[in-house]
Amino acid sequence: MSKPTIVDVHTHVYPPRYVSILKSRRTVPYVRDTVPGQPSRLIILPGEDSPSSQTTAAGRPIGPEYYDINAKIAFMDTHGIDISVISLANPWLDFLDPHEAPSIARSLNEDLNNICKTYPSRLFAFGALPLSAATDALVDEIDRLPSFAHMRGVIMGTGGLGNGLDDPSLDPVYRALEATQMTIFLHPHYGLPKEVFGPRAAEYGHVLPLALGFPLETTVAVSRMILSGVFDRFPKLTVLLAHSGGTLPFLAGRLESCIMHDAHYRPEGRRGVWDVLRTNIMLDAVVYSELGVRAAAAASGADRVMFGTDHPFFPPLENENAQGESADGKKSEKWLSVTTNYKAIHDAFGEDKAQAEAVLGGNAVRLLRLTL
Amino acid sequence: MSKPTIVDVHTHVYPPRYVSILKSRRTVPYVRDTVPGQPSRLIILPGEDSPSSQTTAAGRPIGPEYYDINAKIAFMDTHGIDISVISLANPWLDFLDPHEAPSIARSLNEDLNNICKTYPSRLFAFGALPLSAATDALVDEIDRLPSFAHMRGVIMGTGGLGNGLDDPSLDPVYRALEATQMTIFLHPHYGLPKEVFGPRAAEYGHVLPLALGFPLETTVAVSRMILSGVFDRFPKLTVLLAHSGGTLPFLAGRLESCIMHDAHYRPEGRRGVWDVLRTNIMLDAVVYSELGVRAAAAASGADRVMFGTDHPFFPPLENENAQGESADGKKSEKWLSVTTNYKAIHDAFGEDKAQAEAVLGGNAVRLLRLTL
Repeated sequence: MSKPTIVDVHTHVYPPRYVSILKSRRTVPYVRDTVPGQPSRLIILPGEDSPSSQTTAAGRPIGPEYYDINAKIAFMDTHGIDISVISLANPWLDFLDPHEAPSIARSLNEDLNNICKTYPSRLFAFGALPLSAATDALVDEIDRLPSFAHMRGVIMGTGGLGNGLDDPSLDPVYRALEATQMTIFLHPHYGLPKEVFGPRAAEYGHVLPLALGFPLETTVAVSRMILSGVFDRFPKLTVLLAHSGGTLPFLAGRLESCIMHDAHYRPEGRRGVWDVLRTNIMLDAVVYSELGVRAAAAASGADRVMFGTDHPFFPPLENENAQGESADGKKSEKWLSVTTNYKAIHDAFGEDKAQAEAVLGGNAVRLLRLTL
Repeated sequence: MSKPTIVDVHTHVYPPRYVSILKSRRTVPYVRDTVPGQPSRLIILPGEDSPSSQTTAAGRPIGPEYYDINAKIAFMDTHGIDISVISLANPWLDFLDPHEAPSIARSLNEDLNNICKTYPSRLFAFGALPLSAATDALVDEIDRLPSFAHMRGVIMGTGGLGNGLDDPSLDPVYRALEATQMTIFLHPHYGLPKEVFGPRAAEYGHVLPLALGFPLETTVAVSRMILSGVFDRFPKLTVLLAHSGGTLPFLAGRLESCIMHDAHYRPEGRRGVWDVLRTNIMLDAVVYSELGVRAAAAASGADRVMFGTDHPFFPPLENENAQGESADGKKSEKWLSVTTNYKAIHDAFGEDKAQAEAVLGGNAVRLLRLTL
């Protein structure tokens, strides 16, 4: 029996051009050099730049796994991953000056496609959009994407043009994405307002914004898209939701029930939440539990859930035991964050190896057309 | 074969004393009379009182199903419910003047126990705490609760004493609850800051705050309890989470993974998220989907999930088709919100009727000691 193809649909890169942009900045997001001889540090989350966190420990060290595609390939080899669909990490180009954004987006999408060409059978990409620019610049960039052999969609945050993804001003963008069959990879960045996490949040490190802020942000964003009728107007638009949909699979029943019991929200011809989940939405399997994978598969169908890693984030802590057994040191150790998600998929499908293999790679190859 | 006992652990009441308090108020929450001859209206959610919603349609009509226990019993009979564990609805006593709060809490808990006495084999209660008062007043009230034959715990919001449930000032409260074996029924009310839902939220009626704000609030609150070590310090404290834990079952894997990968949050002797879920936490089955019930059962164990209705909220809309077939009109119609949750439980457990029956009632009888 041949080994099944493994595809990672959630894996981030910082092309050198993007690192340069971040190094030129002095407000979040930015990259700074702290201690000579030590790696530069990436300051990415809004809260990380507060005066109380102005230490050399703020942010995270940014090494080759962020910007060197050979490090990505080594990570893939360590974890048995055949193909990665790479995407710029948050917050993408959201922060760019509107006048610079379109040309930088053009260059970065060319960079991404060129990176893929260095390992042509192993890399595909989600491009970036200049979301701070005018709608016609966004549409122009989307229309260019099919000309890139490796491009399969765009990664987007939840801010849209500033008013969220239920903003009707985004309709031309959704129309262009639907027409070009480019998938939106919807990814969180902004989390929830910090007061939600209370006065003691800093004691818990980054746990609350990452574990809860991120998936809750995604859930609200995609629910607003559903409620505003985006999927009614663009029935062939496809959206891959990060982190197994945030929490949409678990809350879909409540969302549908609240809609059906609301006397004030009675849209005509509304498509149900479950219909959208099973038709327009795809979910990664970055959920770190068997029950999460099962819920994701029950929500959008096991034929629409796809393995992912979130690399280069969630590396093993230095004091963790290595999971790998290779003699040549840290580079070939398996990451706990990755093995947890592999195990969740295998446990969720048990003896049904065909379904596990579909989630591990077959679904991505089919849904994202990962052939050249 | 005898019919299994059905227990509703999530069902709210507004005792006449509480309605009087709400009628005496002019800020949210309050009850007001609008059109003569029409029912009074309950204004309960923060956003409902905005100038743009100052119409006779604001809030919801408050009829006998809110304050007349005979209406509750009729609802139970219509839906085959044998026992209800009643609780005050949000926002409970959170808004009371700190000086008045303790005596009102005493009177209301006596009211609740007396209401249960009118149908002694069919009603139990979660009491209310005067959370705006000083900690010693809270502890005094908790210590009184075991003297009430029908009292099995307290319903609480997420605000705590003003700084959330991870506030160490609440330790005496948790200690008293643990010592008296009184369960916390943790219920949302405050939702998320309105900017999270964006500028178009009002177009979606109450859908976003109810479908998402409520469960996300619960998820954050219980996660903060876990992270602050409440369950490490009080390992026998039990918490029933409303709405199947908000989204905690789905996010438990991510929460545990983020904790394990956080270099700054390294508490000594931490109990894992899954351990707390399976030992301290109980979940209602108010989640409106088969996959939600399955996820809840996988998270805390099928022996810790319990049927609930959220009555008197989510009544059928007037233009909905009745589900019941009785000839004597609306009172005996089954509610869609209830039949959806019944169906979810039956579908989740399929042929395993013993597990379905445990969730429908057996678990509640055992865990909440529902015998006199």
